[in-house]
Amino acid sequence: MERTYKKIELVGISNKNYEDAIQNAISKAAKTLKGISWFDVIEQHGKVVDDQIAEYQVVIKVAFKLD
Amino acid sequence: MERTYKKIELVGISNKNYEDAIQNAISKAAKTLKGISWFDVIEQHGKVVDDQIAEYQVVIKVAFKLD
Amino acid sequence: MERTYKKIELVGISNKNYEDAIQNAISKAAKTLKGISWFDVIEQHGKVVDDQIAEYQVVIKVAFKLD
Amino acid sequence: MERTYKKIELVGISNKNYEDAIQNAISKAAKTLKGISWFDVIEQHGKVVDDQIAEYQVVIKVAFKLD
Amino acid sequence: MERTYKKIELVGISNKNYEDAIQNAISKAAKTLKGISWFDVIEQHGKVVDDQIAEYQVVIKVAFKLD
Amino acid sequence: MERTYKKIELVGISNKNYEDAIQNAISKAAKTLKGISWFDVIEQHGKVVDDQIAEYQVVIKVAFKLD
Amino acid sequence: MERTYKKIELVGISNKNYEDAIQNAISKAAKTLKGISWFDVIEQHGKVVDDQIAEYQVVIKVAFKLD
Amino acid sequence: MERTYKKIELVGISNKNYEDAIQNAISKAAKTLKGISWFDVIEQHGKVVDDQIAEYQVVIKVAFKLD
Amino acid sequence: MERTYKKIELVGISNKNYEDAIQNAISKAAKTLKGISWFDVIEQHGKVVDDQIAEYQVVIKVAFKLD
Amino acid sequence: MERTYKKIELVGISNKNYEDAIQNAISKAAKTLKGISWFDVIEQHGKVVDDQIAEYQVVIKVAFKLD
Amino acid sequence: MERTYKKIELVGISNKNYEDAIQNAISKAAKTLKGISWFDVIEQHGKVVDDQIAEYQVVIKVAFKLD
Amino acid sequence: MERTYKKIELVGISNKNYEDAIQNAISKAAKTLKGISWFDVIEQHGKVVDDQIAEYQVVIKVAFKLD
Repeated sequence: MERTYKKIELVGISNKNYEDAIQNAISKAAKTLKGISWFDVIEQHGKVVDDQIAEYQVVIKVAFKLD
Repeated sequence: MERTYKKIELVGISNKNYEDAIQNAISKAAKTLKGISWFDVIEQHGKVVDDQIAEYQVVIKVAFKLD
Repeated sequence: MERTYKKIELVGISNKNYEDAIQNAISKAAKTLKGISWFDVIEQHGKVVDDQIAEYQVVIKVAFKLD
Repeated sequence: MERTYKKIELVGISNKNYEDAIQNAISKAAKTLKGISWFDVIEQHGKVVDDQIAEYQVVIKVAFKLD
Repeated sequence: MERTYKKIELVGISNKNYEDAIQNAISKAAKTLKGISWFDVIEQHGKVVDDQIAEYQVVIKVAFKLD
Repeated sequence: MERTYKKIELVGISNKNYEDAIQNAISKAAKTLKGISWFDVIEQHGKVVDDQIAEYQVVIKVAFKLD
Repeated sequence: MERTYKKIELVGISNKNYEDAIQNAISKAAKTLKGISWFDVIEQHGKVVDDQIAEYQVVIKVAFKLD
Repeated sequence: MERTYKKIELVGISNKNYEDAIQNAISKAAKTLKGISWFDVIEQHGKVVDDQIAEYQVVIKVAFKLD
Repeated sequence: MERTYKKIELVGISNKNYEDAIQNAISKAAKTLKGISWFDVIEQHGKVVDDQIAEYQVVIKVAFKLD
Repeated sequence: MERTYKKIELVGISNKNYEDAIQNAISKAAKTLKGISWFDVIEQHGKVVDDQIAEYQVVIKVAFKLD
Repeated sequence: MERTYKKIELVGISNKNYEDAIQNAISKAAKTLKGISWFDVIEQHGKVVDDQIAEYQVVIKVAFKLD
Repeated sequence: MERTYKKIELVGISNKNYEDAIQNAISKAAKTLKGISWFDVIEQHGKVVDDQIAEYQVVIKVAFKLD
């Protein structure tokens, strides 16, 4: 029962949508972290070029279990 | 003019995206409620399994007219 | 370095998803504004008709450079 | 001492003022609830028609004792 | 369905009450804007002179449809 | 220019409306304070008796100049 | 995967501590609800009598699965 | 009905738990104040020495009736 | 008494400090606005190049009187 | 260990910068208070005259030990 | 004077109470971190099994000095 | 496009001003991190000794690109 999680804050980016931006951040973080369990969406932003959404940017917190 | 609405808080879940998670919660609530008019997105979370988003979880408030 | 941006608040609407609602608001604003650079998502709402999501409504702030 | 209260969220509407909008929501809720004890004002909005305030809309939480 | 609204922030003032302060801001804005649809109350303040409320000051956001 | 203000937090109560509740708190505080300049509304609550609003309760911050 | 939860807001009270106040609210709600899964602490207050804490009051949201 | 309360902000400290930290702040304030009626918990912090919690620190608002 | 103010949101930038970033935004806005009365600081950010602060970025709201 | 602090809210003003505005408020408060230990910045505003910042206004909470 | 602290976010869990949940998170983090100085409580949640609190879950930020 | 940033939270301290406190935190973090791109100011505090500001303390989030 006395498990502990650490939460880190990431900014993920995609040119498709916010769901893809979240997955990109998780995939990147997973290269050096194991045991990612859940995430919280904190902020949603985006970049505009020529009046079109060019990037979906999402700030998330990712939680993983400490060994 | 003196209509009144009640707002209830729901957690909807989907493995597709947040829009689908919202619809799932509304569809479930609609089994026992009539007159749902609008919703507000309050929080967005998700579950991660094997470094992939396994569930989109959305906290919404759903408003419906009181008879 | 001493550039200045102005941020305006818009409500975009779509029957597809939130990404489309954001693009709709930007496209509308771009008719009279030039130089839109980024946006922030502030609130997400929606309209429900017959227990189905009929409109995705998003409140965003849009930033553009002042000449 | 171990009494418990439940709080529900309501949207009250009036064409007079916010105090009347709150009372309208309470009167409506009281048709099916007994023991309403207090309320909290959460948000205040309004509808405008022909540049005049046509409706005062108030979001409140209403607390009542559980038997 | 793809209508877009713009929200602007105003400070309205009255020596009567907050409802009047909101109406004053809307009336002033309506001189140069058409299509005001709704408002949100953001903050409520006031000025005190000789221990009496001399001004009710309200910060609102006013939404109107973009053509 | 180097004047300093102190802000204190008060809860005012009235059976009429919120404007009267604010004035009641200011009048009470003015018995021992001089130089009240402005106030900010922080929270609005109320007491309900027999399904009627029995008290309007307002939490305000009152600012006055330090000599 | 498409389960839905509802969250209700309760005020629990105890003369022992906040943990007991939470349990009291859950026990009361459980008389008419099944499937309570988790809770969130929203606010913590208390009543004081003769300069001693007489009641711990906690506002929680309680989540349960909709059938 | 036209009673007025003042709320002051205190930081209470204990090496036992948060409930004791709250009582410590109230007991200290009660030496110069009479009529403390309720409190609100605003923030919870703590000091760590040698990887053990050495102090529970709580920020509360304490309300008392103005004569 | 029935004056009305409009508040607009600006992002000011400076390589000196936040006070200069605010002044830069006001100076830019003043080219097309008259009657700026006050400002509120909303957010403070910055850009880092080679581990040195390269830009102070401030989000402010600027208020001016409507004629 | 059972020391208690009180926090009071002040508005400090300067024509130089925010750091000076904070010091002005502390210096003023120190004329009647002893044992000021720390402060928290709550809000930052300013007055504009002729398109120049004429006053930096800062809202702070100042903490001091109760004897 | 120019010391720097880093704050990390942890989720601690206990079946006893929140104070124990905080200590569990600190003890876990202390296995790989030295110099933990203080913590801030950010959120409090819990898991319910058979209508009893089965886990106290606390989200904290833990600060430690960078060498 | 699919770059990812990580944000960490730091407390920087200076006896000069907030800008210097931010730079101190960034300089310290830069000893073990490369690619710091931007920062957000989260909170501003300070320590007072003999009624003078002895330390400016700033809580910032620092963002850097993950390789």
